[in-house]
Amino acid sequence: MHRVRVRVAEDALDANATIAAANRADFERAGVTVVNLMSAPGSGKTTILERVLADGSTIGRGVRVGVLEGDVQGSLDADRLADLHVPVAQLDTGHGFGGECHLDANMVRSALPLLDLEAIDLLIVENVGNLVCPAEFRIGEDARVMVSSVAEGEDKPLKYPLMFRTCELVVVNKLDLLPHVDFDLDKFLYHLDAVHPGVAHVEVSARTGEGVDVLRSWLAALPDRAGRSALG
Amino acid sequence: MHRVRVRVAEDALDANATIAAANRADFERAGVTVVNLMSAPGSGKTTILERVLADGSTIGRGVRVGVLEGDVQGSLDADRLADLHVPVAQLDTGHGFGGECHLDANMVRSALPLLDLEAIDLLIVENVGNLVCPAEFRIGEDARVMVSSVAEGEDKPLKYPLMFRTCELVVVNKLDLLPHVDFDLDKFLYHLDAVHPGVAHVEVSARTGEGVDVLRSWLAALPDRAGRSALG
Repeated sequence: MHRVRVRVAEDALDANATIAAANRADFERAGVTVVNLMSAPGSGKTTILERVLADGSTIGRGVRVGVLEGDVQGSLDADRLADLHVPVAQLDTGHGFGGECHLDANMVRSALPLLDLEAIDLLIVENVGNLVCPAEFRIGEDARVMVSSVAEGEDKPLKYPLMFRTCELVVVNKLDLLPHVDFDLDKFLYHLDAVHPGVAHVEVSARTGEGVDVLRSWLAALPDRAGRSALG
Repeated sequence: MHRVRVRVAEDALDANATIAAANRADFERAGVTVVNLMSAPGSGKTTILERVLADGSTIGRGVRVGVLEGDVQGSLDADRLADLHVPVAQLDTGHGFGGECHLDANMVRSALPLLDLEAIDLLIVENVGNLVCPAEFRIGEDARVMVSSVAEGEDKPLKYPLMFRTCELVVVNKLDLLPHVDFDLDKFLYHLDAVHPGVAHVEVSARTGEGVDVLRSWLAALPDRAGRSALG
């Protein structure tokens, strides 16, 4: 039984890699840079997006943003973003028994017809809130960004190393709660460096807006870094 | 491909149900009541256990507690609890690529030899931090308890309904953060009641200790409610 399960898992990951490559080719053709945005439930992904996109659908350097929302159930997050004049598409993963615990390349592929890729330069895919499975499934992204809130504890990089190891940027959120929680930021960064030496991080409070400019600039520069500017 | 994957998932759940029933029979024979403790990463499961067990390995009514820790990687949580003079066994789920995202009945079964079931009345199984998959896999438990922290947001019952629907008790944790977060407790309870009408809840702060007595009493009464007291 155990060997059968492992075999199936490998097949699923092989198939995922194939479809992720196809997604990536489509994104490259359309000149779209893709960010896979991941975190635990309630870390503040949607609130961060609301802040980043508060001034409209471009975020500097003329970069036009679109969002793909993955939710186990409902369209709460997509509804929140719909007020922001940003193209938002919704993936409902709740067809399984308890819903999918991650987005995979095929789910993202199924949403591509909902998106006008020609009208955006940067697609931000908000993954399902989960620190395990989303890290295992590429969706065709250029960069992975994860959010970790100070309310979750400084041990998280050690407990979920794959997630912290596979991302290009770690957003430390809820900085405004630092005086009220037992969270040593230096210790968190030390643990982060242990599992992913040299990874970039930004410190933000989506609630107060602190640090959001830095994140917005990082995202706005991403199409250039990916060699995929609107002109390219 | 899709049909094959669904079939495998059903088989896995069927096998899980079979093994969960075997676990349950073993627990009943040994007079052990089992709690499956679930939450998102960083909701405070381990800190709650530290508080509940701070006075020793019995929690009132002479109920002797043991803990089974499920972690993706490392033994951080088990190490924290080892100071408490409570029998603690550790399940390391990190053998897969990114680790398992939940405990299943077979993993729990593999840990049974590590536990002296005759020496405990209540076994608390701390599941992997995840609001999706753990809800799908019974492990042979009598009750499911989930923790949701006020830092995670009042929308969580709507976004992860299966988890909130399948538990007997919801622990609302981090009450001490209420003045510092945008969390309307009444709204959270309204959402909770929408997905799981009438479910019990307790409000605690594992940090300050507020409400922990109520939770401890609920847990201490569980063997009686399950018809499985130390005498029975």
